[in-house]
Amino acid sequence: MNPAVFIDAIQTELQRTDYGQHPPELYDPIRYIMSLGGKRMRPLLTLMSTYLFTDNWQRAVRPALGVEVFHNFTLMHDDIMDRAPLRRGKPTVHEKWNDNIAILSGDVMLVNAYDLLLDVDVDKLKSILARFSRTAAEVCEGQQMDMNFETRWDVTEAEYVEMIRLKTSVLLGYALELGGLIAGADAETNRHLYESGVNIGIGFQLKDDLLDVYGDPAKFGKQVGGDIIANKKTFLLIEALEKATGPIRDELTGWLARTNFNKAEKVAAVTTIYDQLGIRQITRSRINEYFERGFANLEQVVAEPARKAVLGDFARQLVERES
Amino acid sequence: MNPAVFIDAIQTELQRTDYGQHPPELYDPIRYIMSLGGKRMRPLLTLMSTYLFTDNWQRAVRPALGVEVFHNFTLMHDDIMDRAPLRRGKPTVHEKWNDNIAILSGDVMLVNAYDLLLDVDVDKLKSILARFSRTAAEVCEGQQMDMNFETRWDVTEAEYVEMIRLKTSVLLGYALELGGLIAGADAETNRHLYESGVNIGIGFQLKDDLLDVYGDPAKFGKQVGGDIIANKKTFLLIEALEKATGPIRDELTGWLARTNFNKAEKVAAVTTIYDQLGIRQITRSRINEYFERGFANLEQVVAEPARKAVLGDFARQLVERES
Repeated sequence: MNPAVFIDAIQTELQRTDYGQHPPELYDPIRYIMSLGGKRMRPLLTLMSTYLFTDNWQRAVRPALGVEVFHNFTLMHDDIMDRAPLRRGKPTVHEKWNDNIAILSGDVMLVNAYDLLLDVDVDKLKSILARFSRTAAEVCEGQQMDMNFETRWDVTEAEYVEMIRLKTSVLLGYALELGGLIAGADAETNRHLYESGVNIGIGFQLKDDLLDVYGDPAKFGKQVGGDIIANKKTFLLIEALEKATGPIRDELTGWLARTNFNKAEKVAAVTTIYDQLGIRQITRSRINEYFERGFANLEQVVAEPARKAVLGDFARQLVERES
Repeated sequence: MNPAVFIDAIQTELQRTDYGQHPPELYDPIRYIMSLGGKRMRPLLTLMSTYLFTDNWQRAVRPALGVEVFHNFTLMHDDIMDRAPLRRGKPTVHEKWNDNIAILSGDVMLVNAYDLLLDVDVDKLKSILARFSRTAAEVCEGQQMDMNFETRWDVTEAEYVEMIRLKTSVLLGYALELGGLIAGADAETNRHLYESGVNIGIGFQLKDDLLDVYGDPAKFGKQVGGDIIANKKTFLLIEALEKATGPIRDELTGWLARTNFNKAEKVAAVTTIYDQLGIRQITRSRINEYFERGFANLEQVVAEPARKAVLGDFARQLVERES
């Protein structure tokens, strides 16, 4: 099976889905954010996961799109909360329209997400929605933790990993689990799928933090060092704050406190501190731990090897990314 | 059956429901807004509607609470959009905490509402949730229309009634329909229940507009004339703008344009204009039309008379309110 078939199925459904029409102020922003693109990672995971157990993966297309709509709902509301001006290089909904429209369109997107998830076998509906509601609440918990961290300087590694687990990884776990639920896989298999998505998701997010500092500027899409410039509480900074003592600590906290600085100079200085503390190696080994756990979870899933390879190859692409 | 039994069941479930715990910034606002009280009209309608068809109305308590949680979610988000400082005399969530917390807590409330609605028979779940999603989207459509009306002076009566139908009445309709769906009533019965709630809801909302101008200050909870002072586009104002011509029109638009005015003087002047145009009678007769339609819909429902009387008496209390 060529993964392009899954991508095509998602694109076709995206084109065809009617989110609603009137009033346009409510529904245009949904069409807008859904048209901005993205890797469609979550619905792809659901389709590939369904395909592990059945040829009839097409029945998973609408619920898979439900997960994508939910993800984009969180982006629309997070962008308001973060006052983000851009999303995928285009104006965010609250910038292009206004805050109220972004709140209300997002609300309808969450309703739309549930509605798309209704398109499953009746006997599986309750467990699919109960797991979705649990996941959706956890994503909100992660976003709230992330906002709480903004004003704290004593966030521990464990707290940070818990935050990214909730904010981003549980939805990747659910995307995989959903395929198993739709295909009628057993509870243990679904648990392995979920854990696999969660662990790979944590590794993926930590790699995001790593690439922001140590990415190849030629390959990395964003400005390398952006997180350092913004004092963003990444895994690297939290780790450095936990490890640094004496003059290195003073230098690091000095850079964090400065409001007037040369950007390149700050990026170079903080990167040097990270180097001195061995943060790159610590982060790399933590990323590998999560990826290994995730692939070990996937190993536990009993399915035809050729089908597992489709999902495994896609997951490997995700973890090997340089941008 | 004493209606107090239904009220007690809702209060008990409200006390017992765990919306979530961590982080507290996410869940405290939910407990707060749910504790502010209110008539609990929607869950009461669901329980009374279930009781029309079965003694086992207790199984409707959790889904009924789902409707109440959804209603309070819309209040939390509407209050942000309207920049409302107070809700039931207490600070709104975005005032007591902040906008971001009100957005995100509201999001989780919508998830909680769906979760409570999952607690129904598996064979009824899909239709219960599909109708809920449709209703929830319509409530958002009504709120968007309401916001659009703020900057328009040519809103027609038909547009206004459609806005209140969506913003408030369809949820009352759904609350009644939900009882029928839970109890396994037939499709025609459920349609009558829904239409009854929608029609009574429209009458109820129009009566709200009427009481704000013509309510007895001794009985009406809020300041009589508040809508006139705020230029709020109520049924009365829209009707007056549709009817007024010549010098009366000039006087009305003059009061609407004025930014510096004596409040009592404006209320008296606009009320006199309403009197001259016969707005009170027009509004009253429209209210009665909707109430009559709503009670006629209820008549169509086949159920034991004593059980219908419980719901009918409650609905009559709602329509006869003076505050």
